[in-house]
Amino acid sequence: MTTNKIGQTKSHVWVVENGEPRSRSDRLTTEEPLEIRLTSPQQTVAVTMRTPGADFELAAGFLYSEGVVSSREDIQRISYCVDSQVDGSQRYNIVNVTLKEGLIPDLKPLERHFFTTSACGVCGKASIEALKIMELPSVNTDIKVTPEVIYSLPEQLRSAQGIFQSTGGLHAAALFDSKGTLLKLREDVGRHNAVDKLVGSAFMSGELPLSDRIVMVSGRSSFEILQKCIAAAVPIICAVSAPSSLAVSTAKEFGVTLIGFLRGQRFNVYSGWERLLIQ
Amino acid sequence: MTTNKIGQTKSHVWVVENGEPRSRSDRLTTEEPLEIRLTSPQQTVAVTMRTPGADFELAAGFLYSEGVVSSREDIQRISYCVDSQVDGSQRYNIVNVTLKEGLIPDLKPLERHFFTTSACGVCGKASIEALKIMELPSVNTDIKVTPEVIYSLPEQLRSAQGIFQSTGGLHAAALFDSKGTLLKLREDVGRHNAVDKLVGSAFMSGELPLSDRIVMVSGRSSFEILQKCIAAAVPIICAVSAPSSLAVSTAKEFGVTLIGFLRGQRFNVYSGWERLLIQ
Repeated sequence: MTTNKIGQTKSHVWVVENGEPRSRSDRLTTEEPLEIRLTSPQQTVAVTMRTPGADFELAAGFLYSEGVVSSREDIQRISYCVDSQVDGSQRYNIVNVTLKEGLIPDLKPLERHFFTTSACGVCGKASIEALKIMELPSVNTDIKVTPEVIYSLPEQLRSAQGIFQSTGGLHAAALFDSKGTLLKLREDVGRHNAVDKLVGSAFMSGELPLSDRIVMVSGRSSFEILQKCIAAAVPIICAVSAPSSLAVSTAKEFGVTLIGFLRGQRFNVYSGWERLLIQ
Repeated sequence: MTTNKIGQTKSHVWVVENGEPRSRSDRLTTEEPLEIRLTSPQQTVAVTMRTPGADFELAAGFLYSEGVVSSREDIQRISYCVDSQVDGSQRYNIVNVTLKEGLIPDLKPLERHFFTTSACGVCGKASIEALKIMELPSVNTDIKVTPEVIYSLPEQLRSAQGIFQSTGGLHAAALFDSKGTLLKLREDVGRHNAVDKLVGSAFMSGELPLSDRIVMVSGRSSFEILQKCIAAAVPIICAVSAPSSLAVSTAKEFGVTLIGFLRGQRFNVYSGWERLLIQ
């Protein structure tokens, strides 16, 4: 296998059709681990399986949505690993984040993913409560959109994705304005990484909060997707497929408009109905 | 929202079609966190967002595929939390696993998910190497299957899923014998959890290794799916959609037959071509 461009790896494949085999070359979505490190004191805060590309945005978006950093100035520098002990090809799988001098990051929220020591255990309600104490920006309620704008999003997402990808193995997250204009699109083998890349890009270019924006994701919407979008104050979240129960509870709790099963001239609104302009 | 049966939650939804809104009741896939605890010494080893149901199998499958336990006897007891400090409704989100007396579990492999301290960092190659040192059962090479058996799997998976689910939000993992007979199916909002439940069920009923079995998953195949199936010695892994590059490398390294884009009378073979009986 050879990696020919970012996000794609070439591989040989046997295609079997109606019992007949033939051999051809195929393009695969690249999946590699990314280790996110803070530099002082040096510590690893996450290892995620991701598609290489937009790695700095992924790191920034992850740290932002976890509450480790809250403004662009909190990050002094992001770079790939230059540790001489690390093999050259692996350096691009490690990102070093140097925080602003004197900033003592609160790494507690990260533990939520891994180890919980609280006697009360975990539940959907606890997950929502954990978000509520993060002092998130409030979600704007002024934005209104028409069904026509919503209908237009999936096709725009698909055609923008088509330019970059033809492996069929990538999730996408896209940012739109309230008129339905596509502003940004990020892709990854993991849906939550695609959202981190999107939010991280907005974070690094000083565009947060995204109070008058729409985010659309391929596939389903889960608690994790909602969490990351709410951290960026996104008021309208759309998905091609179904939301989970906890995604819906979270959307209701934070006043987010959550749309699912968005296909053709049809969609479901699970929360935040008031942002739709229906004639 | 009310949870009416395992895995489903009822919710009110607005359906907008051709600009016309109507209100109806909808069923959502339940998503709740599950905390997996070892009892002595008491420690949390994982928190995963999952669909309730088959929680003991999920815990067992997770601990098995991570190398924490290796045989049925290593687990003395699995139970829901009975901590009086924990609210009743939350107790079903915590599973306590009591290991065999005297068993000191090696929790190192778990750290791979979270924190890595090694100077060499992480890369696809390192991920594969980490699997190789886990003393996994070897993958049987005797099993052979016809294309017709492979063609039959997606429809069987879909119809078995249909019985349990109508929310459109669940991933499935199914176990088949080499004749294509469906033996077991497990579902979850997370694909990796569905595989943990499937492997955990086989683990608890003493059916491991699965050397003459086929596993089929909905959606895509990633490194994580391969890792869990290889730990159970599954020789043939099929997916409805694309594999990632690391899934293919891992399949090749461990001699697993990896099939993707399995739809109608057609599929792609990425690795382990020799297990196919082509006329």
